[in-house]
Amino acid sequence: MNYSTLAKGTLKGDRKAAARLISVVEDEEEGYREAMKIVFCGTRGAGVLGITGAPGVGKSTLVFEIAKSFRKAGKSVGIVAVDPTSPLTGGAILGDRIRMTDLSADPGVFIRSMGSRGGTGGLSLQTSNVIRILDALGCDEIIVETVGAGQTQVDIMGMADTVVVVTMPGTGDEVQSIKAGLLEIADLYLVNKMDLPGAMNTASDLKSMLDLVDDWKGWKPPVLLASASTGRGLDQMLEFIGRHRAWISQPERFLERRSRQARKEIYDLVTMEVHRMIESKFPSVKLDAIVRDVVQGKLSPYEAAEKVAAFAIR
Amino acid sequence: MNYSTLAKGTLKGDRKAAARLISVVEDEEEGYREAMKIVFCGTRGAGVLGITGAPGVGKSTLVFEIAKSFRKAGKSVGIVAVDPTSPLTGGAILGDRIRMTDLSADPGVFIRSMGSRGGTGGLSLQTSNVIRILDALGCDEIIVETVGAGQTQVDIMGMADTVVVVTMPGTGDEVQSIKAGLLEIADLYLVNKMDLPGAMNTASDLKSMLDLVDDWKGWKPPVLLASASTGRGLDQMLEFIGRHRAWISQPERFLERRSRQARKEIYDLVTMEVHRMIESKFPSVKLDAIVRDVVQGKLSPYEAAEKVAAFAIR
Repeated sequence: MNYSTLAKGTLKGDRKAAARLISVVEDEEEGYREAMKIVFCGTRGAGVLGITGAPGVGKSTLVFEIAKSFRKAGKSVGIVAVDPTSPLTGGAILGDRIRMTDLSADPGVFIRSMGSRGGTGGLSLQTSNVIRILDALGCDEIIVETVGAGQTQVDIMGMADTVVVVTMPGTGDEVQSIKAGLLEIADLYLVNKMDLPGAMNTASDLKSMLDLVDDWKGWKPPVLLASASTGRGLDQMLEFIGRHRAWISQPERFLERRSRQARKEIYDLVTMEVHRMIESKFPSVKLDAIVRDVVQGKLSPYEAAEKVAAFAIR
Repeated sequence: MNYSTLAKGTLKGDRKAAARLISVVEDEEEGYREAMKIVFCGTRGAGVLGITGAPGVGKSTLVFEIAKSFRKAGKSVGIVAVDPTSPLTGGAILGDRIRMTDLSADPGVFIRSMGSRGGTGGLSLQTSNVIRILDALGCDEIIVETVGAGQTQVDIMGMADTVVVVTMPGTGDEVQSIKAGLLEIADLYLVNKMDLPGAMNTASDLKSMLDLVDDWKGWKPPVLLASASTGRGLDQMLEFIGRHRAWISQPERFLERRSRQARKEIYDLVTMEVHRMIESKFPSVKLDAIVRDVVQGKLSPYEAAEKVAAFAIR
């Protein structure tokens, strides 16, 4: 189908067109790529803020408060809540959206939840498209929230200009519970629920860990304390988000970050293309036979891969 | 270099040759693939048991106890401890190997720690090679231990015949802290440190979660309680591991599992090949220019990927 009408509507600020286009992208309906090419040309360079952390640390409340502050500054806001664990939880982790209703009536706010629908392209490619759709729709600021779930979470956060990793005291092993991949992309740590016992310890553990790294290349992630529900510490967090935004916006730095993101996306898309090619063109009977030979020890996986690659790759 | 001597030595039971070959594989030294083809033909079908969970839940003690019981049954044992978080932690998470010294003096036990050395092939491909080396060396049983770290952990556990997911009471959100990907591959849940308060609650939370799934296709993962340090509950765990082994060993089931593993490995290897091809043959100036066009909004990532794919793919 031709979804260019939805794409063009999105560029004109039509929220319904954008919402429908997002569904098209999520379902990877045929023709969505052509529509995305149009969307891509209409992006305006919205700021992208990533908020991530384990379930229950208070991410949604933070997103709500940050969105409110953007609105006060006269900016339109897109919110994308991505739950990579959704096939199992049924999306329950991001189900706590009650407070969001305050915002959803606001025409300057666009909210969308996404879960894994099992498309071939993967949730992170879909999310990057949704970010672009909201950008093209005219959102000034886009907030992306994910729950902790491995590589997808890391990939999605890699699309943000600024990443806030949220934790809370009292889970025993806060520092180690922050996954390695996240440590590499965090720009700011927030110990939420600062009124709980152990908050200071959690913060100082995080700081000690960060002290082990020598070369921060200009930005050492601050460790902040806050209480999203009472509002304590939120101004400080917003100030640091703004500082990081200013830092990352320096032309060469911005270019480097965006280039890294683009490179990764191109690789992912090429990989997807190769897998699709194998599945569609490589005779499945032949692939099954190769797999069987590997299982029976007649062929090593390397030889098997060479056979498949010889077919697929120039 | 030619490492076939190491591969042949491994097949003859030479532990030193195996240890050196593992290093070659970890460093992805040129020629390691040829050596692995020899190893592959020498595998004997060792049982592979996966043990995973967050840091601090007591995995290493469990591995130690399980290895001891295999030894008592007259079986030789290979232990592979994989820490995907090692670039950041310096391997500290798997540093608690003191008790292993009891075993390391035993010629019937081969122990190896692995961390991410940043090779292009990835830790999970390396681990699958190490499993094969230990299999070809003559280990009857191979135990693979990983700490929780996203997709790599899930991929590595996907190589095991039986996967035990270990948790403990008192971390607040035990069920949600078990990552989605793991839920899909767990064959057995163990609530370790059962003497701590809340152990029964953790177990019943897990059970309630499992009750939400209808179609277990013949094996519903049991939720067991144990205390690895006092030995309580370990016999029961070993019994269930044995039961799962018997269940999974039925020919068609075994074939299905091994086929899935082989298929995934072939895809990973082909993907690696494509990436390597792009990097080695696609002119980097040209790739840089394409990335720049994407960053500047002149080209969509889809068009960029099409350009690269047209070069790489038949």
